Order: sequence, then C-alpha cells, then structure tokens
Amino acid sequence: MSDPFFHPISGQELPRFAGVPSFMRLPYLTPEDPKRAEVELGLIGIPWDAGTTNRPGPRHGPRQLRDYSTMMRRVNPASGLDPFALCNCADLGDVNPNPVDLHDTLERVTTFYKAVAAQGIAPMTAGGDHLTSLPVLRALGADGPLGMIHFDAHTDLYDSYFGGYRYTHGTPFRRAIEEGVLDPRRVVQIGIRGPMYDGEDIEWGRAQGVRIVTIEEFFERGIADVMEEARDILGDAPTYCSFDIDFIDPAYAPGTGTPEVGGPTSFQAQQCVRALEGLNLIGADLVEVSPPFDPSGGTAWLGVNIMFEIMCVLAKSLADRR
Amino acid sequence: MSDPFFHPISGQELPRFAGVPSFMRLPYLTPEDPKRAEVELGLIGIPWDAGTTNRPGPRHGPRQLRDYSTMMRRVNPASGLDPFALCNCADLGDVNPNPVDLHDTLERVTTFYKAVAAQGIAPMTAGGDHLTSLPVLRALGADGPLGMIHFDAHTDLYDSYFGGYRYTHGTPFRRAIEEGVLDPRRVVQIGIRGPMYDGEDIEWGRAQGVRIVTIEEFFERGIADVMEEARDILGDAPTYCSFDIDFIDPAYAPGTGTPEVGGPTSFQAQQCVRALEGLNLIGADLVEVSPPFDPSGGTAWLGVNIMFEIMCVLAKSLADRR
Amino acid sequence: MSDPFFHPISGQELPRFAGVPSFMRLPYLTPEDPKRAEVELGLIGIPWDAGTTNRPGPRHGPRQLRDYSTMMRRVNPASGLDPFALCNCADLGDVNPNPVDLHDTLERVTTFYKAVAAQGIAPMTAGGDHLTSLPVLRALGADGPLGMIHFDAHTDLYDSYFGGYRYTHGTPFRRAIEEGVLDPRRVVQIGIRGPMYDGEDIEWGRAQGVRIVTIEEFFERGIADVMEEARDILGDAPTYCSFDIDFIDPAYAPGTGTPEVGGPTSFQAQQCVRALEGLNLIGADLVEVSPPFDPSGGTAWLGVNIMFEIMCVLAKSLADRR
Amino acid sequence: MSDPFFHPISGQELPRFAGVPSFMRLPYLTPEDPKRAEVELGLIGIPWDAGTTNRPGPRHGPRQLRDYSTMMRRVNPASGLDPFALCNCADLGDVNPNPVDLHDTLERVTTFYKAVAAQGIAPMTAGGDHLTSLPVLRALGADGPLGMIHFDAHTDLYDSYFGGYRYTHGTPFRRAIEEGVLDPRRVVQIGIRGPMYDGEDIEWGRAQGVRIVTIEEFFERGIADVMEEARDILGDAPTYCSFDIDFIDPAYAPGTGTPEVGGPTSFQAQQCVRALEGLNLIGADLVEVSPPFDPSGGTAWLGVNIMFEIMCVLAKSLADRR
Amino acid sequence: MSDPFFHPISGQELPRFAGVPSFMRLPYLTPEDPKRAEVELGLIGIPWDAGTTNRPGPRHGPRQLRDYSTMMRRVNPASGLDPFALCNCADLGDVNPNPVDLHDTLERVTTFYKAVAAQGIAPMTAGGDHLTSLPVLRALGADGPLGMIHFDAHTDLYDSYFGGYRYTHGTPFRRAIEEGVLDPRRVVQIGIRGPMYDGEDIEWGRAQGVRIVTIEEFFERGIADVMEEARDILGDAPTYCSFDIDFIDPAYAPGTGTPEVGGPTSFQAQQCVRALEGLNLIGADLVEVSPPFDPSGGTAWLGVNIMFEIMCVLAKSLADRR
Amino acid sequence: MSDPFFHPISGQELPRFAGVPSFMRLPYLTPEDPKRAEVELGLIGIPWDAGTTNRPGPRHGPRQLRDYSTMMRRVNPASGLDPFALCNCADLGDVNPNPVDLHDTLERVTTFYKAVAAQGIAPMTAGGDHLTSLPVLRALGADGPLGMIHFDAHTDLYDSYFGGYRYTHGTPFRRAIEEGVLDPRRVVQIGIRGPMYDGEDIEWGRAQGVRIVTIEEFFERGIADVMEEARDILGDAPTYCSFDIDFIDPAYAPGTGTPEVGGPTSFQAQQCVRALEGLNLIGADLVEVSPPFDPSGGTAWLGVNIMFEIMCVLAKSLADRR
Repeated sequence: MSDPFFHPISGQELPRFAGVPSFMRLPYLTPEDPKRAEVELGLIGIPWDAGTTNRPGPRHGPRQLRDYSTMMRRVNPASGLDPFALCNCADLGDVNPNPVDLHDTLERVTTFYKAVAAQGIAPMTAGGDHLTSLPVLRALGADGPLGMIHFDAHTDLYDSYFGGYRYTHGTPFRRAIEEGVLDPRRVVQIGIRGPMYDGEDIEWGRAQGVRIVTIEEFFERGIADVMEEARDILGDAPTYCSFDIDFIDPAYAPGTGTPEVGGPTSFQAQQCVRALEGLNLIGADLVEVSPPFDPSGGTAWLGVNIMFEIMCVLAKSLADRR
Repeated sequence: MSDPFFHPISGQELPRFAGVPSFMRLPYLTPEDPKRAEVELGLIGIPWDAGTTNRPGPRHGPRQLRDYSTMMRRVNPASGLDPFALCNCADLGDVNPNPVDLHDTLERVTTFYKAVAAQGIAPMTAGGDHLTSLPVLRALGADGPLGMIHFDAHTDLYDSYFGGYRYTHGTPFRRAIEEGVLDPRRVVQIGIRGPMYDGEDIEWGRAQGVRIVTIEEFFERGIADVMEEARDILGDAPTYCSFDIDFIDPAYAPGTGTPEVGGPTSFQAQQCVRALEGLNLIGADLVEVSPPFDPSGGTAWLGVNIMFEIMCVLAKSLADRR
Repeated sequence: MSDPFFHPISGQELPRFAGVPSFMRLPYLTPEDPKRAEVELGLIGIPWDAGTTNRPGPRHGPRQLRDYSTMMRRVNPASGLDPFALCNCADLGDVNPNPVDLHDTLERVTTFYKAVAAQGIAPMTAGGDHLTSLPVLRALGADGPLGMIHFDAHTDLYDSYFGGYRYTHGTPFRRAIEEGVLDPRRVVQIGIRGPMYDGEDIEWGRAQGVRIVTIEEFFERGIADVMEEARDILGDAPTYCSFDIDFIDPAYAPGTGTPEVGGPTSFQAQQCVRALEGLNLIGADLVEVSPPFDPSGGTAWLGVNIMFEIMCVLAKSLADRR
Repeated sequence: MSDPFFHPISGQELPRFAGVPSFMRLPYLTPEDPKRAEVELGLIGIPWDAGTTNRPGPRHGPRQLRDYSTMMRRVNPASGLDPFALCNCADLGDVNPNPVDLHDTLERVTTFYKAVAAQGIAPMTAGGDHLTSLPVLRALGADGPLGMIHFDAHTDLYDSYFGGYRYTHGTPFRRAIEEGVLDPRRVVQIGIRGPMYDGEDIEWGRAQGVRIVTIEEFFERGIADVMEEARDILGDAPTYCSFDIDFIDPAYAPGTGTPEVGGPTSFQAQQCVRALEGLNLIGADLVEVSPPFDPSGGTAWLGVNIMFEIMCVLAKSLADRR
Repeated sequence: MSDPFFHPISGQELPRFAGVPSFMRLPYLTPEDPKRAEVELGLIGIPWDAGTTNRPGPRHGPRQLRDYSTMMRRVNPASGLDPFALCNCADLGDVNPNPVDLHDTLERVTTFYKAVAAQGIAPMTAGGDHLTSLPVLRALGADGPLGMIHFDAHTDLYDSYFGGYRYTHGTPFRRAIEEGVLDPRRVVQIGIRGPMYDGEDIEWGRAQGVRIVTIEEFFERGIADVMEEARDILGDAPTYCSFDIDFIDPAYAPGTGTPEVGGPTSFQAQQCVRALEGLNLIGADLVEVSPPFDPSGGTAWLGVNIMFEIMCVLAKSLADRR
Repeated sequence: MSDPFFHPISGQELPRFAGVPSFMRLPYLTPEDPKRAEVELGLIGIPWDAGTTNRPGPRHGPRQLRDYSTMMRRVNPASGLDPFALCNCADLGDVNPNPVDLHDTLERVTTFYKAVAAQGIAPMTAGGDHLTSLPVLRALGADGPLGMIHFDAHTDLYDSYFGGYRYTHGTPFRRAIEEGVLDPRRVVQIGIRGPMYDGEDIEWGRAQGVRIVTIEEFFERGIADVMEEARDILGDAPTYCSFDIDFIDPAYAPGTGTPEVGGPTSFQAQQCVRALEGLNLIGADLVEVSPPFDPSGGTAWLGVNIMFEIMCVLAKSLADRR
C-alpha cells in the first residue's frame, strides 16, 4: 500500500481548475527532495521537439498534460485498479532541455533518467516528440536490451533524413536497436499505417525480428488476439511501453504533428493498454501531444487518460514484483 | 395530425442561415400566447450552469442549439417518423434563470415546468448543465415517481462536493430519488465510464435498484440487447429521458465540461434513442452542451440531432397515447 | 512505368512545410506547358462554391488541399499501389472561376475539362462544392452517359430550391441524369443519411434506377458486401467517382457545409475506396472540403488521404487499360 | 417618446445569454404584424454574400449580430442618447435571400425595402456583403438621389470584375450613382486605404464629385475636422449611412472578407459616428461582418456597438424631424 | 534586497515552456511552508467566477496566467525596477473556492487573506471575476477603509441584479463602500465606458464621492494629467489597486466576459500603472481574464504583463516603506 | 520599367483564392530557370525555426505568407509606388532547410543567398525565425559590413542561452557584428521593449555603437523624428532591413513566438517602412510570423502588407540606382 503523502488531491475537495498543476495532482518533488527516495513511480516531462521533421509543438506537451491531468480521478472503472494506492507516485518535474542543441539534450535526458533509475523509480514520461524515447532507453536499457510494446502509426525505424541526418523523431528505435538498448525480437509495433516513403523501415525492422502489426491486421484480428500475441512475444523480461498519441485516429487526437487517418478509437486504445496487465513493465512514455494543433484541448485530455491507463498496469506490475 | 401553424420552416424556402432562430424553426410562443394551449410538445431552453463543478459554459447551450437547429430537416431517415406531423410542436422560450443564485433558479425552473405540465405539454428541454434535470423532475414527478432512461458517462448520483454541498451537476438524480420524484427501480443509466473518485455513487445507485450499464457492458452486449433490457425495466409507466451529451465520445462531442474518452459514436447514440420507440415517454432533456469548448460547433449540431431523434420517439409516444 | 519528371518530391529530402505547394508536390503545369501532353492523371482544383445553399467555404478547398498534400507520401500501405509509379501525374492548376456568376463558371469548367479530356488526361478534381461535378460530367460524359460511384451523406438529386432554382450543390446529379451525361442505372450512392425534407429526391432517384444505399444498410451489411454489389452494378463501362467529404462522420470531417452525424469512420472510407480496384475509372472528384469550418485542418488532411486512395485505384485502372 | 412595447429587455432582468435573440432584444415583428405600423426605426437583416469576390461569410452576419446584440444596453455613455426612448424600434426580421441567384435576391431586397419605406420606417440594416447596399438604395432613393456618408477601407466604386461582371461587393456605389439613386456630389467616403489595383475607382469617383478621404488624410487632419467637412457636404438633405466593418483596423475587426491593415481604432470609429448627429439621416447599414473569420466573436460585438451608435444618431434625427 | 531563494528562474536557463508553472516562476509555498514568513509580496490565485452575470470563464484565469507568466522576465524596461530584487516574492497558491456556493466562497477568500495580511504579506491577486475583490477588501480593509485606484470599463457600483440579488461581479464596490472597507472619497475609477443600463451606478458613486473618469475624459486629458489627479486624490494613505482586464480595448484583451469597445491600448495601460509609483500601495488584483474566450492566449499574456507592472510599483512601495 | 512577364496576376482576373500560391502571385522560378537571370528583386522563403528558444512555428511562415499574399494588389496607396512596375520581381522559392541540424541549415542558407547575390538579385526574405537573418547577412555582407535598419521588440544581441549556446533567434546580430558582416555604427534598432533579463544585450550593443530606440522614445519623439535620425545614421551606404513582426503590438500580430505588449499599430509600422525611401537598400527580411499561434490568419496578412511596403522602398532603391 502506498503512503498517503503520495495521493492525488480529489476534485471533490479542490475544484479541478484550482491549484498549481502537477501531474495527476501528485506532490511535485525536485531532484533534491528527500521524499524522492520513497517514490516508486515517477511522472516526468520532457518538453522537447528538436527531432521533429514536420510540424513542431510537442515541447509544449508536458505543460498542457499537467494542466488537463487535474481533471483525472483515481480508480480505473474497468479493471478497478487504483495506481495511487498500489505504489508511491510523484511528479518529478521536467528534464531541462536545450531547445537549440539536439545532442546536448540527448545527453541531458539520459543523465536525468540514469539518476531516476538509480533511485529505483519506474518512469512514466510525458513527451516531447518521439526522439525523446531514445535517451530514455539509453538510460533504462544500459544493463541489457529491453523489450518494448510500441503503439504508433509509424515504425520510427527510419535510417536518416535530409541527407543522412540520423537523429529525428522518425529514427529513435533504429538507433536504439543498433545501440543494443532494445532487443528487436522483443519489440512489438501496433497500429502502423499511412502512406509510405518506400517501406524500407518496415523491411529493416522485420529483418531484425521486430513484430510489426499494421492497422489492417489489427482491425481484422481484433484487439484480444493481437495483444495476446504481443504478450507472448514480450514474455516475462523487462519491457518498456512507448505510446505515440498518433496511434489513435486524428478525429480523437488531432493535436499531433504527423497524424495518420484510419486509426483506432480511444476505447480501442484503452483496451490495448489494459491488455498489458501481467507484463513486466519497467517504464513507459506518452509522446507527440502537440498543443498548438489541438484547438479544443481534447488530445491532451485523451493523452492524460492514456497515461492513467498505463500507470494502472505499470503500478500493478511494480506492486506484483515487490 | 398536427396543425400546419406548428410546422417548421423549410431550408429549401428560407435558407438555413436566415431568420431569427427558434428551436427547429418552430413558432416561438411566449407564456402569454394563446396558441400555447394547443401545443403538445414544447421545446424549452434552460440557460443555466450554476451546478457545474468544473468547466462552465452550458448556460450558452440553448442559444447555440437554437442557432444550429435551423439546419435541421423534418423526417427521420431511419424510422420515417416526422415529429412535426405527429403533434403540435413549438418553441416555448427559455426559463429566465438567476445565474448568481442557485436555489432561486431551482425554484424558477420548477415553477415554469409546473405551468407547462398543467397545460398538458410534454417538454423537450435544452440545458444547461445536468442540475437542470432536478427542478424539471420535481415538476413532472410531482404526482408520483417517474422512470428514467439516462444516457451519460456519469451516474450523477454523488452525494455532495466541496465539503458537503448537495446541489451540483453531479448530484441531481440522488436528490431526485431521495425526494421521491424518480423511482430508482425504473432508472436505467447507460454509458457510465471514466476514472472514478471511489465508486460510492455506483454502489449507492445499485443499492437503490438503479440499473447501471457501464460502457464495457454496453459495447460487449451491443445496443439491441441493452436497449431491450432497458425497455423491459421501464415498462409502460411514465418515463423521462435524460441525455447528457458527454454520453457520446468527445471526438464527436468535445463541447462539454466533463468529457470522458472511450464513448460511443454518434451513430450508436442515434440507435440508442431510436430504440426508445414504444416507451411511455412524458418528457426529455439534452444537457451539458458547452459552446465555449466547441471550436467547430459540431457538438451543438450533434446535440440538435439528438434532440430531433428524441422528439421523434417522444412525439410518437404522445400520438400513440392520444 | 512513369517518367521520373512526374514524381513527387519526398518529405525526407525537402521538409513537408517547405516549398511552393502543388498537389502532392507534383510538377505544376500550366495549360500551355508542353509536358502536359505526357500527363495521364491530372490533379485540378475548382475553387468555387456558388451552388452552396447553406454555409460557404469550399472555394477555399483547393488551396488548403494543396497545402496539406505536401504531407503525403507515395506508397499505399494496404494495397502496395504507388500511383506516381503507375502513370504520369501532374498538378494542372485551378479552373479560373467567376465567383459572382454561376452560369459563367459552369461553362468555364466544362471548357477546361473538355480540353483535359481531349488530351487524354484522367482528371482527379479537388472541389469546390458539389455543383462542380455537373460541369465536369458534362465534359467527360459528352460522348455517352457515364456510370458513377458516389459517396455522400446526401443524394444531391433534388429538383430545385428557393422557388424553383435548379442549380445548387443539392441538384447536380438530377441535372446530369436529365441531361444524359449520367446513366442512372449505373449510379450507386452510398452513405445517404440525415433528416430529410420529404424524401422526394430518393423517390425520384430510385424511379430512375439509381441504387441508393442508406447508412443503415451500409452498416448492417458491411463494406465488403455493399461494395461488391456496387462493382456488379458498375461493371466494366466507364465510371466516374464522386466523393463528398460529408460522407464521413463530422467527428472526422467537421470542415464541410452540410455535415450529417452518424457516418462512417475514416478507415471505413479508405476501405470503400480501396474496393473500387478493378473498376473502369475515368475520373474522380473530392468535394465540399470547407476550410473556414475546420479549426484544426484535419478535414483537409483527411480529404488529401481520400484523394490519394482514389488516385491509387484510378492510376491502377489507367495502367491496366494501357 | 416611445411606446414601452418597443423597449429592449434589460440584461439585469433576463441574463444576456438567455432568450430567443432578436436585434437588441427588441420585439420581433413579422411583415404581417399590425404593430409594424407603429415602428419608426426598423432593424433588418440581409443574410447574403453572393457579391463577394474573395472570402465568403457575411451571409452569417445577421444571425451572429442578433446573438451578440443581446449583450447591448440602452443609453449612450458619451452623448446620453437612448435610441429606444427616442422612437419606436423593432426587429423586422431578415429579407429572405436566394443564395444561388444574385439577381433574384437584388429584387427581393428592393421589394422588401420599398414596403418598409412605404410604412415610413427608417431601416437600420445588418448585412450581408456590401452589394446589399445597392438594392436598399434603389428602394430608398427611388424618389430622388440620396446623399451618403460612407465608412470603408474601399471605395466600392469599381466598374466590373472577372471579365466584365458588374454586380459584386466592389461595385455597388458605381451602380447606385449610374442609376441615379445616389448623388455623387453628396457622397463622402472615409477611411480609404490598402494597396490598389490601379486607382481607376478613385479617379472615376472624384470625377463624379465624390469626396474621398484616404486614411492618411483622415489621420493627419483628425476626426473633428474631417467630419465637419463631411457634414458640410451632406447638408440638410436626406442622407444614408453605410458602414463597412473593414473601415476599422483588422486588429479590432478580423472577421471580414477583405481586411486592410492600417485602419482606425474602435474608439475612433465611435467618434466618427457620433459626429453624424445633426444630419438628416434616413437609413443606414452595417455590412461585411463575416463570422467564419472571427474566432473570438469580437467583430460581431464591435459591429453591434457600431449599429448602436448609428441607431443613436438615426433615432435622434427621426425624433428631431418629427 | 531580496533573498535569492525568492528569485524567479530565468528563461535563459530553463526554457519558458518547461517546468511546473508557478506565478512568475517563483517558489510555490503552501500555507504551511515556514518560508512563507519571509514573503513580502505574495501572488495568489482566486479561481472563481460565481458572480458572473454573463459569460463565465475567469475561474480558469489563475491557471492560464500561471502558464503564461513563465514567459516573463524580471526587469522593467521603462522604470528599471526589478520587483524580485526589491522584495521577497512567492506564489502562495490558490484560494480553494466552492464553485457552487457563492457565500461559502466569499468567506473562504476573506479567511485566506486575513491570514496573508496577518503575516504582513502584500497580496497580488489573479482572479477570478470582479466579485473576488470584495472578500479581499474585507480582509485588507478590516482595520479601516482603504483607498482604491480602479481601472475598468465598468464602475461595478450597481446595487443588484435579477430581482434584487446583491452579490455579482457588477456590485463589489458598492458593497465594499457600504461595508466601510473602501473610502469612497479615495476611490478613483478610470476607463468607464460602454452603453449603460440607466446610469444609476454612476450617480450613486459620484454621490458618495467616487471620482469616475470616463474614457472620453481619459482620452481628452491624457494619461499624465489624469493620473496626477488620481495620485492627488489617493494621497499617502493605504491604497488598493484593482485592475479589470476589460479596462483595455477588446482588440488587445478579447478574453473577458463583458468586453467594451473603445478602450485604451496595452501601452496606455502600462503607462497608467507606471504612474502609480509613489502611492502607498498595500495590495492589488488583476481580474476577469477568461481563457475560454481567448483563442490566441493573448489576453493572459497581457494580463501577466499588467501583473508585472503592478508588481513593480507595489514592490517599490513596499521597499520604500521598509 | 519591368518586363510584364514579371507582373503579378490581378485578383480582378483570377479570384484571390484560386491558383497555386506563389509570393504576390509572381512567377515562381526554380534555381535552374533561365529567366532568373533577369530578376532584380527576388522573394525567398526560409521555412526554419531551429533557433527558437520558446514557442516554435515560424517554419510554417513562408507557406502561409504565400497563401495570404494572393490577396495583395500592386500599387501603394500612400506613395503611389508600384514595385512590380519598378523592377522585375519573382518568387525564387524556399531554401531547403534541415530542420534537425542547425549548423547544416546555416550553411545551406548562406550558399543559397550567395548564388542569389551573385546573380545581382536583391532578396526579400520571408522567415523563419530571426536566426535566419544571420546566414543571409553572411552572404550579403561578405564583401564588407552592411548597415541595418532593424524593427523589433528585441535587440537579438544576446550572447548565449542554455549554458553557453551561441546560435538562437536571440543572438543573430551579436554574431553578425562579431563576424564583421554588420557595421554596428550603422545599425539602428527601433521598438525595443518588454521586460528584460538583465539588460546586458542593450549595454553591449550601445558599447559597439548600435543606436537602440526603445518604444518609449519612439512614442515620445514620433515616427518622423526617429526615422529622420535613422536615415542620417544609415546614410548612403548599403543597408539591409530586418523586420521582426513582433515589432508590432500583439493585438495586431498575435501569431509570433515572443510577443511583447505595448507596441506600435499596423499604421505606424507602415509609416516607418515608408520612411525608408531614399536609403540604399540592398535586401530585407520579414521574420517570426508563426501560423500556429495565429487563429485568424491576421498576422500573416499583416506580414504580407509589411513585405509589400518593404518591396516598394526596395524596388525604388533598385530603380534609382540603375
């Protein structure tokens, strides 16, 4: 059971629109805070989008996700899980990025996450564009390649852009596999769709052993079947979860830089995440929420809900392993 | 058959964007108008959101719903019902609310609806937040508890907020059951979802006999099955219909104060309402449309369509009982 | 195989937000350009909405569709088709409309398309409101009535508006059938829904032999079944494809003048278009994208995706007939 | 003194967001209403933009202006004038336009206004694009050419567009002068600015005797001086006032089709209208408010304020002549 | 000189979009924090709009003002003042309001501010609608009536609304004068404008001795002259500053519930506040920023700038009195 | 006199919303086009914002500026200048940027502009954030330091950000002075305002001899006086003009990343640019237009107007030197 110090403030006590907004209305602990030693699940923002090849904006994601997270409640209506009861959760703040120097920021993120990992905290990250996953994986996978369940419209397995440039939000997992922080045979990508440049990314991934589930296969087989296969592939070994908001159809999540039509609904996305229960999860991220392209704020609200769903299965995994 | 005086103006005669906007382009009758005595189905606005615990705005709902209702036509394409042919319909205007005194407005609404009921008019209300249902039910259920079919993401069966305050848009049906204007054994709630505070609302409701259908059950069993059960529970006795626009997924209805992801589509919502045909309906409301959070106006347009679907089954019910 | 001159510029070479935006980043050829003689599939804008009876805006459609089309890639992930490899594609610019004289513009469009047809170019049009289809059909169907697969929420088979006026975006196909440029027994309309004026349009259409598939039938039977019937009806003879963006639910496509709730998803729309493979397609249009009612730009992006899907089956049809 | 029947409803009694919105919350009188005989100043909407050469939308102007006019109060804080006390004011509804037939609508408007003029009502029109002024002037100037005070960024004195088409929102006053319903020597245009096609409109206007005050002259001489000259030119003879919302800088009035930067503030616009006191005003219009290009609604609110200012001086003129 | 603990974080060290947003990036101190005893100038949010008679939204003001305040820097370019160097500044969080019980919240606010005052902290409040000023004045003026410099389009001196209701955002200063917490002879209101109900508010205010400067007088005399008079009236006694964002023209500040056209520019507003240097300021508020009516966020950004300007003169006043 | 090949298309011939949008509707010439040799004034887009320290978006500037530039006409109403008649103007397309590698893009821009300069073309650039000016100046100032007239709210003379990073949109002119491509004694900065970090930028600039005119000085002395001084300082030697859209008040130009309240109006901005007539201008840029923060598009429209004003004085300067 968790320490009440780490419980969120209820919207029936403090109205949702009131108060300084931390993630999920949890206590915000600076790196120096001694309470940080007790945290088991840490929410972290990475306000950075220097890897974006098209429409920028995810640097504003953590701010807006914190804002909308004040509308969240605490118990999962489908699974009955209460992540805040299962383990000590806290807002660990943002990594301080350098918006004008991509490589400097890659290092800053890895440094930050190595410290988090050293304290035994499982991170739930709010991006940022998808390049943010790379420096996180470098920290979490330092001791051995991780498995990954990856929800996305894109493989992010491209080699390079713009004349050979290798670090963009389209390349993080190719780099992570090359660097040995991801085990391609334990990587499952779900929801892949959208017109392609040439398909080289998919060919390369499959050649490495990555399991790529296109949206057509996803809809044809159904969620239960696809997720069962995913759990089989991922097994009991440590697994990271990366959720790109563009996995979900742009009618539900317009606020993202590279939307692809023809995606799943928000309910289907919830079902996918709930099916992760039982995996050995060690961290997760929710990326590519881009407030400037989201006139109603609905993408952030959906993003917060996905973060909550992930927190439920992640907290359960942490509690089960305790 | 209805009196042509009460027919809406066609968009093929007067363009939809022209004219002073009354609900569905029906004649607008003030309380003093003698034609009011002939009305069978009255559209009424309650521009009021003083019960809102989070994001305000439904006070602007009736204005925008009238505006978009000028885009409506008259015949239901699925059922073939023409509510304007089935009975005399009119716009009865808005209840005059007191935006700064909640209890004063509760009384104003009940007074207004007692007069409407006394004239034998079945009301179709455009809210307003969900607290508006309470004073309406006080008027309509004055002679005995009503049944209710309730589409919503939330039960609105909470006891109190903010240190014991009992009148908010999260509490109307607890009050209505306590006051004896709703019969909890004839209340069916469909679509309940979203992270919970603690589940006390659901426990209390079920203990009273309320039938609560969560979104998971709804999707698993399917609309036809769920609605058949609902019709069985509601039977032939007088039944009120309350439709909170947040029943529908926020991709379809972003303009509302407390959206919950993972909901039904607009087509599914239409099917639900069409399945009410055959019930003994005596009134209805459509609530929680909040224009300030609806950049494209699509929520109001969907709300108008739901109002139209409800009017079809309500008019049929009135005509059948005639 | 196509000439590389007609290939689109890749977003991995020139970022998507850079450059003067032509359709799909194809070469833009003025009417005088000698390369036009080599074009097989021409993208053309008709920035015109004088037939609009309600909310205007489609005159701005081609501009915004060009803009968003720079985010497109080239290979269809489901079918593997690459339209740009299958035939020579180019942007042929916009028809110059006269926004204040409807009949003058009808003539300008027909003249433009007769020249396109005379060069043996199959046109893929970006409207404009749905009246734009009429002058296009006058040009393409000049030598004999065409078949048509028509995705829409509305039949557009009305006779007249506003006291007998016969040319609006609600009447083009009635005129086209009357004028003998469409063969009603080879017209299939899919997705029809929304409250009706009186149903006269449907009655008239069915009396002529038009096959009208309502949304209820569409959802009940499923896409595969409906589209198989459509292909049977259309057979091997020349067929035009007209796609009104309001076929798709307004949650996915809010940016249109006459949205109707309860429609298909974007994925279902993609599946419908993909099912056209094998037809003898000779041209197509995508109409009613209205930027002023689309705060996020998502409707244009969906419209571009539909244009791409149509281009895939159209290019395949052109290549197969070569 | 006016009849209290014609007084607006106060926002201290009925909240501004409540009620069916008529202009200024005045009684809405259909053409058949017998109370219409007592009206002295009538507010009329012309929801029509068929003359628009660029971005459409003013057809939605009257609807939104009615909506925002419910936020208006009744006494002018600068002059102390209360137009509702000075004469009987009412909302006379909208002219029913034919959006797809320009010439039909020109006739419909003139017919409507001849009836209004025959009843001795001074019209205050809410457009609509600027072409709406032409059919109004044809009705009001039928017995002899009128003078006109014209606030606008453009002269609207062009001869023709798009290959000789003579009826657009850029040509109304050239037509009105040619037709003899305006006396060019008693036409004063203020605020003219923006890059020019070739200046032919200004040359033609000056050759007819129109007094054209450019924005540079306006700012250099100041409002008092310019308006004094305008009053001298207009004298005691009947004068119409036409106010294009694009007279005001687009920072204040973005919601218009042809904005021109470098214009006056809203305060300067108020001062200009207030300086019309003393003229023999017989009618007025406020045109080119285009809701689709006005994300915040501020243009409509400014438009309502200008309508109120014009009503003050118009009502004073009517009362003085009584 | 201030303690560096209380200095804001620079945007040259932590990008403006990063981090949990406190007011001005100052340390956030809960009521229990021992560092609170060292605070001299406290920023406090009152997220509450229950007194709003028209369009709601200011309850969301403090959240958005905190967000935009992260774009602020620290030195005033005109006066050279650095409020963070002059005294210890901190974010003291939000008052916890009860959104559904107006009187309960009035008490909560007063209680909160009495504690703040007891600690010797001068409060800079971010509202909230203008009713929030009343409970603050009740706390600050408990020991004797205060003077007030009041920038606003409205007097907020009305007696009652909606049938005698005395507590709205249009009545706070009438109540404050009646209750003896404001000295009417030391109240100066600047910027008053907009059509009036009947002028009773102005008459009452002037009868009490309030100095009301209309916008016409303001523009005619100029800022220097008006502000000199204001300083003379206010003298050396304790003075509160209340700044309603609707003082500024809605082109600059559209995001507010009751905008009035014809107001000052943002530069003029800055000059007005800078002219308060030398007064004996003891607290201030910035109210009526309403995010739902502010599509670009510019109103919040302007609001933050005004807060900064007020903080400069308030901190100077505190430092001078030390 | 110019060659008619280089004249823009008139909106009276092709409606403004029609056609593929090139800058000012001029011919678009690729680098290989032989007609490029005849160009005297070239419009170039630099869609790049990698130097942005706060809110990104200017990478989308050139696209939107091209779009809105189709609403432009050709003759300056104040000066009578017609830039398209004075010299051959053309759209030279966009520099192809590398959005994920800042230094690569710096080189790409300089290379592009050296080629432009080598052809004797004076460039009018549409940015892009303000860092884009640096590589342009490196190309244009390669043969000797240039003078510069600089309109901006910020000096952009900072040394470094984020721990010593020297290339951001806040540092271009410090770098340009250090590198000897700008002569600080012939640099005039006008409009400087907004709260400061510490003022080091201003001190450094003044120490180098830069003439910095704050907004307070600007408003106090007036445009004519300030601009006369500027012309004196700049003299007859080659001068570059850099115009940051945030020079203008955010009420007029909200669509920018670092707005500062209290700025000039659009009319004042026009007057400033018109006062450049007589200088020896050799190129110019308009930067920091950020479409994602501009809900109405008004900032781009204002930006296009400023580009037009600059083109008038630049074309005059080119013609005079011919």
